[in-house]
Amino acid sequence: MATRTEFRTRTRELADRLDGMDASATALELGRMSRADRAVSFRSLPKTRAIEVFEALDPSMQADLVGGLRSEQVAEIIEDLDPDDRAELFDELPAGLVNTLLSGLSPQERALTDTLLGYPHDSAGRRMSPEVASISERATVGEAVADVRRQAATAETIYTIPVLGAGRTVVGVVSLRDLFSSADPRTPVRELMSAPAFVRATDDQEAAARTVRAGGYVAVPVVDDEQRLLGILTVDDAMRILDEEEAEDDALSGGSSLLGQPYLAVGPLRLFRKRIVWLLVLIGAAALTVGVQTYFEDTLAEVVALALFIPLLVGTGGNAGAQAGTTLVRALAVGEVRTGDLVRVVGREAVAGALEGLTLAVVAFVPAMLLTDVGIATVVSVTILGICTLATTIGAAVPIVAKAVGIDPALVCSPFITTIVDTSGLIIYFLVARAVLGL
Amino acid sequence: MATRTEFRTRTRELADRLDGMDASATALELGRMSRADRAVSFRSLPKTRAIEVFEALDPSMQADLVGGLRSEQVAEIIEDLDPDDRAELFDELPAGLVNTLLSGLSPQERALTDTLLGYPHDSAGRRMSPEVASISERATVGEAVADVRRQAATAETIYTIPVLGAGRTVVGVVSLRDLFSSADPRTPVRELMSAPAFVRATDDQEAAARTVRAGGYVAVPVVDDEQRLLGILTVDDAMRILDEEEAEDDALSGGSSLLGQPYLAVGPLRLFRKRIVWLLVLIGAAALTVGVQTYFEDTLAEVVALALFIPLLVGTGGNAGAQAGTTLVRALAVGEVRTGDLVRVVGREAVAGALEGLTLAVVAFVPAMLLTDVGIATVVSVTILGICTLATTIGAAVPIVAKAVGIDPALVCSPFITTIVDTSGLIIYFLVARAVLGL
Repeated sequence: MATRTEFRTRTRELADRLDGMDASATALELGRMSRADRAVSFRSLPKTRAIEVFEALDPSMQADLVGGLRSEQVAEIIEDLDPDDRAELFDELPAGLVNTLLSGLSPQERALTDTLLGYPHDSAGRRMSPEVASISERATVGEAVADVRRQAATAETIYTIPVLGAGRTVVGVVSLRDLFSSADPRTPVRELMSAPAFVRATDDQEAAARTVRAGGYVAVPVVDDEQRLLGILTVDDAMRILDEEEAEDDALSGGSSLLGQPYLAVGPLRLFRKRIVWLLVLIGAAALTVGVQTYFEDTLAEVVALALFIPLLVGTGGNAGAQAGTTLVRALAVGEVRTGDLVRVVGREAVAGALEGLTLAVVAFVPAMLLTDVGIATVVSVTILGICTLATTIGAAVPIVAKAVGIDPALVCSPFITTIVDTSGLIIYFLVARAVLGL
Repeated sequence: MATRTEFRTRTRELADRLDGMDASATALELGRMSRADRAVSFRSLPKTRAIEVFEALDPSMQADLVGGLRSEQVAEIIEDLDPDDRAELFDELPAGLVNTLLSGLSPQERALTDTLLGYPHDSAGRRMSPEVASISERATVGEAVADVRRQAATAETIYTIPVLGAGRTVVGVVSLRDLFSSADPRTPVRELMSAPAFVRATDDQEAAARTVRAGGYVAVPVVDDEQRLLGILTVDDAMRILDEEEAEDDALSGGSSLLGQPYLAVGPLRLFRKRIVWLLVLIGAAALTVGVQTYFEDTLAEVVALALFIPLLVGTGGNAGAQAGTTLVRALAVGEVRTGDLVRVVGREAVAGALEGLTLAVVAFVPAMLLTDVGIATVVSVTILGICTLATTIGAAVPIVAKAVGIDPALVCSPFITTIVDTSGLIIYFLVARAVLGL
């Protein structure tokens, strides 16, 4: 953009592109632009829209933009963010900048933010909103309604309202719907309230989010160890947390680290850095397959035709193992399977794998025989049966064992399982070959 | 359970196990039991709890239980379900049973259910709740509040309220929060309302669910082609839909069909049936790898040591391709990448793949040389570079091309990509071997 005219034209082009989009569509579009375009486009947004759009961006994109804005504009936006969104953004920024921004906040907002930043990473306390409306357990419906009205302007949500007893302890929750529908304003709130589901500020964020989702709650109070009210975790927050965890699991199960940014904002070098570690680990593990074949080198030299089927065999084992693995990772994540179910799971997976192996062995026999001879076809078929049974068993067992020793099952990704299966599969192949062909 | 005493003991055991659990935990536990135990446990639940638990179950589990309950108990439960949950359940039941159950409903509930069943499968109309509270655009806040109170008992939600103009067309939405916080009851509702995001009843359910989620809405009105109000889709419904879609994608990307039931409720035969089709397709595709090696059989016979590295090479290619594939499937699903970005994506993935290949080639060279000789090590390293570059490019391009021709990217699962990569990788390997070793 060498000249001023070109710059203005570009600015107008980008502004036109964003014209008429709502905040989330604009945020998505900004994620697709180059860094320079993104900064130009954002600066051209009218103020109220800019704040909305900013709130809709990933924290990584927010951090990226903050560097390119005037400090008054930054201060304004940061001040307007909800405390939990602000805490998330601060996690992405360098410590020096965070301190500058903190000092630029109003005292009230600064206190709220300090509270949140005091909780450990990935805890419910970091993600909650401290701006929570609450009512006393001794109030009547009429008093509660007036009280909530007063707090409505600043509260994160008024649809679920914690009811407090002595010392700000949470004794129940009441829904706005129930308050609203109640005919008689003199009804004690205690009659409408239900037992609270709550989470502790120190709870892991994913566990807290699942509590919100599983119970179908609009929001859940967040308490300290004495059950005193600290904040509230909304279903919005819960969904954001679970989306992030899902993105991380997706990345891990495919064998790479989470990108953490919109895909098109990530250059090839960063893609490389996110993936190379796993690739190195896996190629190291694959060295085992070389070792196995070296050990059986004589067998291979005698019957070179055995080599023809190696990719097919390891591929099939990998596929069968991946099927079982992904099924179990999901079943563990949603709580359908627990670590104590290991024997039960392995039993059914072994049977399923044997059925798969039998089917594939029968299907493969005749073509293999036509290509080579009966002996090799027999070796291939028997190996397929063995590999499939082994692969489904290992593929299902590994996530469960991982969870039992405290490793995230999704971390033990399909490529890892397939490497174990590949090596075992080759051993089976050559042992069967020696036995059947008398080598 | 041969004797009456054993039956009573078992019933008591199961009832104890479920004691003190909330509805969703009970539903999870029922999913882990055998069919017989599940029926016994459910029948032992007190009536109100039974209805809650029933609503928390997957439709497949609901259908499973319905067969084992007395018809009065079934009729009671079915009558109490929300219309959208009922429609989902009916989808799982045989047509004859559905007709029987429909005729057992009260006329009002039957009409609501008929409405929903009239919409196509997987459409927003099937999943919406027709029980929607609404207010007129000419109402004041005071009138609206009274109106909503009247409708509150039967409405699915009162937190988002569609505002209707002439002919029941949706002209805006107002939140209960805004109605509630409004100081002056004479304020026209039109001043508080915001432009409606809405979905059509004929829209695909996943697209509708994403609209709800992306906008952070509590609920979204569902309209017909003339924008007349038909029902409402809540964030609960949206999350259920997206969870189902995610489960389906997870299964597909691992290479098997969706289980559709809690894992432990599925026997080995059913696991086998869900997976065998893909395994057969993939082993058929793997026959290509056999073909490639047969074509190059002479090369292989001359330098048998080439076979040692085949599993490692195809494994590495598969891993690199899977990394790119899972990244792109996700980026496409959340809208960060569109089909028009193919060239952009392929460009950056090719560079990333080349960097990966270069790194792995360097790492592999010396060990390969020590094991065999310089010539073969050169062949292996050059092939790794080629395979990685090819694998990431194919792995990233295939989901985009799939989406462009209307196939669900998640369907083109990692095993499929790895099979393409395996075959191309072998071709590269042997061609490089011939060139470098002068064969």
